[in-house]
Amino acid sequence: MTDFQPPLSGSAQDEAKELRPKFNSDGLIPAVAQDSATGDVLMMAWMNEEALRQTIETGEATYFSRSRGKLWRKGETSGNTQTVNDILIDCDQDTLLLKVTQKGPACHTDRKSCFYRTVTSGGALSFAE
Amino acid sequence: MTDFQPPLSGSAQDEAKELRPKFNSDGLIPAVAQDSATGDVLMMAWMNEEALRQTIETGEATYFSRSRGKLWRKGETSGNTQTVNDILIDCDQDTLLLKVTQKGPACHTDRKSCFYRTVTSGGALSFAE
Repeated sequence: MTDFQPPLSGSAQDEAKELRPKFNSDGLIPAVAQDSATGDVLMMAWMNEEALRQTIETGEATYFSRSRGKLWRKGETSGNTQTVNDILIDCDQDTLLLKVTQKGPACHTDRKSCFYRTVTSGGALSFAE
Repeated sequence: MTDFQPPLSGSAQDEAKELRPKFNSDGLIPAVAQDSATGDVLMMAWMNEEALRQTIETGEATYFSRSRGKLWRKGETSGNTQTVNDILIDCDQDTLLLKVTQKGPACHTDRKSCFYRTVTSGGALSFAE
């Protein structure tokens, strides 16, 4: 795979048969990771062009760390890798959904998922695990 | 609920027992909607403070439309509303996950989910439905 094709507009983008990812003004696109086996949403992170290219080519989820300003192959230090089974893209191609096989916990807090707190009506958070 | 409390840093934010949403420089936070019944990820959209407040208070998913520059109660024109069963927030509180009961299709293309295309290794898209 070489460069990505540019986005189209409106319904042409919605019905496009080729990948035309819409990166934001920082050159990034959000990627939601979902556990293929359980359906649990694990985390959301960002990809730049190179991260998306590497994810497609290697089948291992690779993101762009906004805090560190560099590519980050998920699990490269923790060992908690994400093997990508499917990559989906939404209608206007500005969000990715990765169906993954997660090794170990997905969250840096050592929890299975980053979404471990529920918002209660008063604005307090209730811990799910 | 009045104003949201400001984000903390590092592990204090990860372990906070109160909602301290981290809005981006445009005042927005991404919200992933997941079907409570099927586990399908339906869409990703953005919320500003007021959208999040209304979603918590009314139990109906309300987003901020970046293209129209205004609040958008999901389904207000299409009738395809999202009743919110749970709102989860991630470790650093910069992404929301809504577990919803979706009425009708979630996508403006009349598909059940916005994620109806899979990326193939060559960069073509395969339609799932």
